[in-house]
Amino acid sequence: MAEPTVISVDSLLARVTSIFESCGVRPQSAVSVARVIVAGERDHCKSHGIYRIEGCLRVIAAGKVVPDAVPVLQDTGRAMIEVDAGGGFSNPAFDAAVDALAARARETGLAALVIRDCLHFSALWHDVEALAARGLASLSMCPSYSSVAPTGGKEPLLGTNPIAFGWPRPGPHPYVFDFATSVAARGEIELHRRADTPIPEGWAMDKDGNPTTDPEAALAGAMLPFGGHKGSAISTMVELLAGAMLGEFMSKEALEFSGGTSLLPRHGALVLALDPATFAARSGRDPIAEGERLLSAISGQGARLPSERRFAARANALSGGIALSDAELAQLARFESEGLAAVTV
Amino acid sequence: MAEPTVISVDSLLARVTSIFESCGVRPQSAVSVARVIVAGERDHCKSHGIYRIEGCLRVIAAGKVVPDAVPVLQDTGRAMIEVDAGGGFSNPAFDAAVDALAARARETGLAALVIRDCLHFSALWHDVEALAARGLASLSMCPSYSSVAPTGGKEPLLGTNPIAFGWPRPGPHPYVFDFATSVAARGEIELHRRADTPIPEGWAMDKDGNPTTDPEAALAGAMLPFGGHKGSAISTMVELLAGAMLGEFMSKEALEFSGGTSLLPRHGALVLALDPATFAARSGRDPIAEGERLLSAISGQGARLPSERRFAARANALSGGIALSDAELAQLARFESEGLAAVTV
Repeated sequence: MAEPTVISVDSLLARVTSIFESCGVRPQSAVSVARVIVAGERDHCKSHGIYRIEGCLRVIAAGKVVPDAVPVLQDTGRAMIEVDAGGGFSNPAFDAAVDALAARARETGLAALVIRDCLHFSALWHDVEALAARGLASLSMCPSYSSVAPTGGKEPLLGTNPIAFGWPRPGPHPYVFDFATSVAARGEIELHRRADTPIPEGWAMDKDGNPTTDPEAALAGAMLPFGGHKGSAISTMVELLAGAMLGEFMSKEALEFSGGTSLLPRHGALVLALDPATFAARSGRDPIAEGERLLSAISGQGARLPSERRFAARANALSGGIALSDAELAQLARFESEGLAAVTV
Repeated sequence: MAEPTVISVDSLLARVTSIFESCGVRPQSAVSVARVIVAGERDHCKSHGIYRIEGCLRVIAAGKVVPDAVPVLQDTGRAMIEVDAGGGFSNPAFDAAVDALAARARETGLAALVIRDCLHFSALWHDVEALAARGLASLSMCPSYSSVAPTGGKEPLLGTNPIAFGWPRPGPHPYVFDFATSVAARGEIELHRRADTPIPEGWAMDKDGNPTTDPEAALAGAMLPFGGHKGSAISTMVELLAGAMLGEFMSKEALEFSGGTSLLPRHGALVLALDPATFAARSGRDPIAEGERLLSAISGQGARLPSERRFAARANALSGGIALSDAELAQLARFESEGLAAVTV
């Protein structure tokens, strides 16, 4: 078997940016989108790496995203800031607003960013890491497509509804978690279907509400929320806060709007940013040092912190580059030469 | 067997308030504390009902709470409001600040309430319901005593760290969830120990980190977070946001400070309030009506919403009164006649 080809993070970023630019994405947005995709690849988070390019190009080819949308910041000076993505990808909108969000959080203690009318494909850890790098704690969430049944029900209604949290640490890496509120991601079931292997018990039910380990039956039925009724409640909270409260689509409407799950969902997103320095000021204690006491105690008993594997992969990629397979390189080359003609909708 | 005695909600509230007053709690605080206790009893949430009176009196008798503390509001006009409970119970502090919190959330879109230096014994749903009654979504959380091992570890470090969420609904009852981020509450293991019955698998591990169904071994070991590594991450977030970020005790420090779990923990609490009307305004949609579409779809497929049982019990209690056993009535009478002398520390 051929050795994988190694490419530097910066080179990959330049190539992916260029692919998006050549497909009509405005340059500033192309950088935003490429950055989160390359960050996923860099962190060996393959499900959110260059694998995502195709999905982004397909939605452009289908005319379901506005590639040259210019995010419009709406800031009335309150603790809530809005950015209208104008039917474009979410990342350029987040990038256009993150500094305003951080400044407002520092000024007033906490602030919220509402992203309106965006297409979402990226992991949320990118957003909370950007805020942690600015010294802020944050919580980010968004709906997705209905695929998860609430506990006690059997019809897909909730999305996989990811939720991410970031907390600044003194070293290079913050405390970050980012996970679906379903037991598994839909893509994991899809991988089992392709491999013709059963899915673990507890992931899903068939269309009649019976537990199933058959990936086909699971995809036709509903996934289960993580952690039983508690996870179901948290997923419901994500629909309410990042959907209903914003007046943006919840997962069911996003699915109805798109007519299927083959293209990226269109909805809103909510990011809360909190300034530990403001919150702790009156106590006289250093909140970051306090946090370290907890986090080092977790590590000290041999438990792994979330994102540790990702950060290790990142360190390797930054020093040694990213290894891509021949198939991945061939696909990149095809996107470069053919642009949108390389994808089918 | 004797019929239980039925007492009206108002009568019980008057009696419990009077017990706290006679034990040195300032009148306004006595009402605050009694109200949440009677609300628990009214909702047939027995673990947070009049059963809690004894724990409150014990902490007064031990001199570990300041019964006549006057909560001091610190409002610098920002989105974060603080109230110093002054070593008193948390409820009077919350009651002293809830209107300011609600007003600020409406004004600026979202606001946070920090409760400092309080003793906590009540369910959090009381707080989020109070905010839902004011038209606000909210999220409330606090640390507790170290009793839960982070996933991958085996030593108790995290608390049972409850988290509650409220969302306003048009009818009499909001959408509310409120749960420990551990699989089970510590009290449930204690009940199994007293009954000499095994606990279910997946609740706890012994002191060597092995899974156990022996309640004694579980109490000497560590409880598990709900939902595996995801619940563990959420519990860690509660420690960071409602402990480290505020410069208040996390669960480990609360335990070290108290020297054991026999008295109520002393720490802070965090409540976030969000105004759906503000968040949705630019969308032109009614966020509460949007929320109803989701919540009615959950109910429509036969799934129960969290807190439904509690609301049903409440309706019964408000119309038909609260049934108390002879033992419960005898204990109430003893508290009324003997005050703090009725409890041992």
